[in-house]
Amino acid sequence: MNAPPARPLAAGATLGILGGGQLGRMLAMAAARLGLRTAIYEPAADCPAAGLASRHFAAAYDDAAALGDFARACDVVTYEFENVPVAAAEAIAALTSVRPGPNALAVSQDRLAEKTFLRDLGIATVPFFAVDSAAALGAALERCGGRGIVKTRRLGYDGKGQVALASAGEADAAWHAIGRAPAILEGFADFAIEVSVVAARHAAGRFAAFDPAWNEHEGGMLRRSRVPAPVSERVSEEATAIARRILDALDYCGVIGVEFFVTGEDRLLVNEIAPRVHNSGHWTEAACLISQFEQHVRAVAGWPLGSTGRHSDCVMENLIGADVDRAPDLIGQGDCLVHLYGKAQTRPGRKMGHFTRLMALGTAGWRHR
Amino acid sequence: MNAPPARPLAAGATLGILGGGQLGRMLAMAAARLGLRTAIYEPAADCPAAGLASRHFAAAYDDAAALGDFARACDVVTYEFENVPVAAAEAIAALTSVRPGPNALAVSQDRLAEKTFLRDLGIATVPFFAVDSAAALGAALERCGGRGIVKTRRLGYDGKGQVALASAGEADAAWHAIGRAPAILEGFADFAIEVSVVAARHAAGRFAAFDPAWNEHEGGMLRRSRVPAPVSERVSEEATAIARRILDALDYCGVIGVEFFVTGEDRLLVNEIAPRVHNSGHWTEAACLISQFEQHVRAVAGWPLGSTGRHSDCVMENLIGADVDRAPDLIGQGDCLVHLYGKAQTRPGRKMGHFTRLMALGTAGWRHR
Repeated sequence: MNAPPARPLAAGATLGILGGGQLGRMLAMAAARLGLRTAIYEPAADCPAAGLASRHFAAAYDDAAALGDFARACDVVTYEFENVPVAAAEAIAALTSVRPGPNALAVSQDRLAEKTFLRDLGIATVPFFAVDSAAALGAALERCGGRGIVKTRRLGYDGKGQVALASAGEADAAWHAIGRAPAILEGFADFAIEVSVVAARHAAGRFAAFDPAWNEHEGGMLRRSRVPAPVSERVSEEATAIARRILDALDYCGVIGVEFFVTGEDRLLVNEIAPRVHNSGHWTEAACLISQFEQHVRAVAGWPLGSTGRHSDCVMENLIGADVDRAPDLIGQGDCLVHLYGKAQTRPGRKMGHFTRLMALGTAGWRHR
Repeated sequence: MNAPPARPLAAGATLGILGGGQLGRMLAMAAARLGLRTAIYEPAADCPAAGLASRHFAAAYDDAAALGDFARACDVVTYEFENVPVAAAEAIAALTSVRPGPNALAVSQDRLAEKTFLRDLGIATVPFFAVDSAAALGAALERCGGRGIVKTRRLGYDGKGQVALASAGEADAAWHAIGRAPAILEGFADFAIEVSVVAARHAAGRFAAFDPAWNEHEGGMLRRSRVPAPVSERVSEEATAIARRILDALDYCGVIGVEFFVTGEDRLLVNEIAPRVHNSGHWTEAACLISQFEQHVRAVAGWPLGSTGRHSDCVMENLIGADVDRAPDLIGQGDCLVHLYGKAQTRPGRKMGHFTRLMALGTAGWRHR
């Protein structure tokens, strides 16, 4: 299911991308720069990636005929979001290479499967419990010391489908708030900061990681990522080593984002993995020769991974909703690379773009306290 | 004709690009990253830019109806090559802004007009003479000391439409070889190296130049550009100042490429101007935060010019014809950014891509002797 292609893609081959959002758009541009053609599979006709891809298959994820046409048009298929239906990925995998393999989707789509996968690898996470009823939620909450976050097992992102609880009395309301769907209760982590590692693995097993980023979230969404992260070299190396273990265990091919909590005692807990290019890696397009997007294309095309060296310190900040009105001002600032996703409609909570501000290597000196 | 637009383009506006080659392709990607939509006007259906643009008008440059449709679909129109028929640019300029103005096309399309324009500005060039017959060519050759290059006034590029002469006896054959078209004889320049300045001017008169590049040509085509150029600070500043005078004289809006000969005595002679993004500026995508492509988009959109700072030394090399077979090897080299144009057919002399190799700032230490 996850076998390497017989040989690396040739220039002019077609890379298929499931999903046509901004990540698909940025992947399509990186693929084009390496001489590949691209095909997007995305139900929405007017999606960010459509104008930048060679072809657009606008069909539903359960349209078997369209999935087949798409698969036959592509030399390799990847995805830009982890909620691609596994059945769609597997239908395509029967006809052409899918990278990363559908197994990575299956693990990351279900918070319980993901946490269990990590635990089985001996990787630390927050305490977690499967929850299938209000009563089970109440019981799990007690085991977490009365506090925690209940999250639906599936289809949560950017803070949606989750409720924080501070006492057992809130279990009933929280269970209803998340729609009484199969869920997981996660204990609160007493962490100092969040960091992420964006790393790549080649089908031949080679591995390369960008420097960890220090991430700040607001309202459940990534607000900004700073590089270098204010962690010791030991923590940085350990986070990278954990990312590598995850990739090896998945026999992964492509770029992944691994989010960590760093406790006050410098313990690392994995919070979440995203089997795709990652928002916290957008800074690489400004501060590295090879961006995470090109890195992903290289990996799935069977080409050598690029250097993950960094020529600058930097901070990447998302433009969410009306933040996009800052773009003209930011474009006028000499040290910023502004990236807009071409979305026609601005809505609250919608990621409209991002920018990366560069500073000379070694000068950022971020502190988190 | 060349008036600034009433106000800067808004995100989501449409940038039109005349020409769908690799320069149009790279402009389209830069425009997309800034949230613009793009429309390409290019007769060839399968051109490098087509897959990266929001729309493609595949029509001839004398198709008045198509030009009108294109102009009405675009908030501002620019061009990626200097041989766009001036009549087409003017027809569009009657309906929407064209930047740079068609006047820059008129000057650069005719080698005699270009050299005369430079002479009128007091800018040094090689000696040149208008040539309209074999006899005139012979006479001009005598005035150049018996040696020179005869070039058609129009439609020459990459070494095509020109013949080098080493004696008056070759005048007749050369005149026939260039098709007996109106021509210009240029005296040989006794130069040490060639450099170019890629610079931008905003409609409001602001100016920004990237560092001069040292260019090496082979067979009339650019082979490689190295930055920084091995010239003194005085020569670098003088070249930049000359570029600025040219842009001001044209009331220019956008990026221009100005090619110079540098003599052994450090005199600068302008060889050629190209009113567009320039092959010798491709290195900016790897060694600068803002590439020449984004800079051009910023200028024509009425947005502030970006920083032209450079974080690395570098060498950019073209992949011409079968050179493209080197791409897999280059992709495997950690310090190279490889850029392929997606051209399906490899032909001798065809620019298929380029790559830029980075090195730490201040370490290149190029010498030209």
